[in-house]
Parts: sequence; structure tokens; C-alpha cells
Amino acid sequence: MNAIVKDKIILGVDPGTVVLGYGLIHIKASKLIMIEAGCIKLDKYADHGIRLKMIFDRLSEIIDTHHPDELAIEAPFYGKNVQSMLKLGRAQGVAIAAALAKEIPYVEYAPRKIKQSVTGNGAASKEQVASMLEHVLENFRMPKELDATDGLATALCHHFSTSGNMAQLGKEAKGWAGFLKKNPGRVVG
Amino acid sequence: MNAIVKDKIILGVDPGTVVLGYGLIHIKASKLIMIEAGCIKLDKYADHGIRLKMIFDRLSEIIDTHHPDELAIEAPFYGKNVQSMLKLGRAQGVAIAAALAKEIPYVEYAPRKIKQSVTGNGAASKEQVASMLEHVLENFRMPKELDATDGLATALCHHFSTSGNMAQLGKEAKGWAGFLKKNPGRVVG
Repeated sequence: MNAIVKDKIILGVDPGTVVLGYGLIHIKASKLIMIEAGCIKLDKYADHGIRLKMIFDRLSEIIDTHHPDELAIEAPFYGKNVQSMLKLGRAQGVAIAAALAKEIPYVEYAPRKIKQSVTGNGAASKEQVASMLEHVLENFRMPKELDATDGLATALCHHFSTSGNMAQLGKEAKGWAGFLKKNPGRVVG
Repeated sequence: MNAIVKDKIILGVDPGTVVLGYGLIHIKASKLIMIEAGCIKLDKYADHGIRLKMIFDRLSEIIDTHHPDELAIEAPFYGKNVQSMLKLGRAQGVAIAAALAKEIPYVEYAPRKIKQSVTGNGAASKEQVASMLEHVLENFRMPKELDATDGLATALCHHFSTSGNMAQLGKEAKGWAGFLKKNPGRVVG
């Protein structure tokens, strides 16, 4: 592998206390390839501690299976009340620690930044995000749960933000926004 | 080791975003022995992500060194604002994950419950808590930083809460409260 060819795997995670979405993309030279996306459903566990353990154990499994080079995490900075923010902070902390435990660096992105990065619109819907992922990622399969696309979008945002493609993205984002206006039928919902 | 003799090590942690206090106690039959207590100072790191990594790495080291059987964590449930609670939740989540990574069960206690358990007074000062720890724990050495006593107190609270000594503690706590009134000189500050 020479220095010019970027070959890495990014794990994107959107950690919530009810559902955690994750997605893995493989950056292979100029190709962006979807590896996998899914959800960890936590609402079936009443106990908050069990939810944290589920997050840690499942993310650790995913990391052991796919050996991502970097973790990108979707992290809201504001919320409704202190109680929910404490719980959200714990979920984020546990997800971050699953990466720290394997010496994997992490970067966090605000939800608006992720949507802006992927669709050119910081207020884009999940369906709009999914539609863009389908365009950008090779080997894209629509996940059963739409929450899983948040993980993929976070991983993609991280790639755009760190690969020097930001300027290019800015141009493309405008193009994509234009594409959306011209092709409203592409947007589900 | 027979079933009656309780022999275990409890790690108590008070995770904050500026300083994390920890303490280890060894429960050996009816003896409560202090192993170690200390602080992880985080204010020298401006970056929140580095603070989380410090918490995870240092707690993992402590766990690898002392092999605690259980983690007890001091966890406030309320705070001033959503921002600080998110950060506190992350610190808690990372501390909890350091235990989850080693399959160590954890229990959390509200600050008031810990003070009540150790001193008989839910609004006790750090100095009052430290004074009681000195009475109860064999091999007690006053930590350099008073924050470290919060970790010890959390570990002790967990022992009292799980060993069936709660009723006895209730009696003793009254006794201790009485002792404090009779011996105000014992209380620093």
C-alpha cells in the first residue's frame, strides 16, 4: 500500500439510549464501499446498565470482526433535559470506550454537520440521507431499519471531513441538492 | 474459601470531568481493609476526548493491578445544565465501560446515599466522610487529595448495601452520628 492510496475502514455510530445505529465503510483508493450497517435495539432492556453493557459488547464484537481504523460518532450537544442528556452521555461514553479499548481514535460530529456533509442540507430527512448514501456508496444495500443509515452517514461525513474532499464535497453537495430538486421522486417519503 | 467468608475487592469511583476519585477496599471476612485511594486529575487536559481516554486507560490499569470483583460508582442524577450532564454522563459511561471490558459488574449510588451510608448523614461534608473512613477501614492512610475519599466511601457504601450489614449500619450510623456530636474535635474543618 503506497502513501497516496488511502485504504481504511471507518466505523460510524449514532449512539442513542433506545437504538444505536452503526455502519462500516471501506475507503479503497477513490472507492467508497459499504461493508455493513445495522442497529442495536435497546428498548427491550428496561435496565439502563444492561443497555450500556449491550452497547459495549456489541460494538466490541463489531470492532473485532471488521477492525475499523477510526470511529466517527454522531453526538448531539443539546437536549431536552438533564436526565436524558446524562443517559445519552453515558451511551456515548460507552461507545467511545469500546473504541478506546482497542486504541482506535474517534472523532465526533454534530447531527446537523453530518446531514450537511452527506446531502448538502443540514436539515435533511433520514430518507434524503439514505437516498444520497445509495448514490455515493458502492455495494449499498438499504438497511432494514432506517436508523442504521445514520451510522453510515456518520462514517461518510468523517471520510469527507478528513480526506481533503471537503471542497469537492461542497461542490457536489450543491450538485446533489440540485439533483434532489430535479428528482423529487428519488426521495422516499 | 467457604461460602460464609466474604472475601472480595471493591473498586469505588467518583467520576467527574475535572477530577476522578477512586478507592479500593478489601473485604476479608469481617475486616474492611483499605488498599489504595487516589485521584485522576483531568483539568490539565483541555480536550474532552483526551480526558475520556485518560479515564479509560487509568481505570483499566487500576483494574489490571488490583482485580476488583465489583465496581461501585458515585452517580449524581441531577445537574445544572444539559451540557455539563452530557459531559458527566460520558465520564460515567467511560468509567463503567472500563469495568464492562473486564466483565466486572457495577452498581451506582447517588451521592446522598453514599454519605448517608457512611456517616449516617446524607449531607455530610467530605471531612466528615474522611473521618468515618478512618474509623471503619483498617490500614487507612489519608489520601493527599480529599476527592480520593469519595471513591473509598462509594466502595464502602456498596459493601454495606450488599452484605446485609445495612440494618447494622443503620444502628452504627446513629452511633456514629452520636459520636460526632460528642467528639466534634474528630471532624476536620
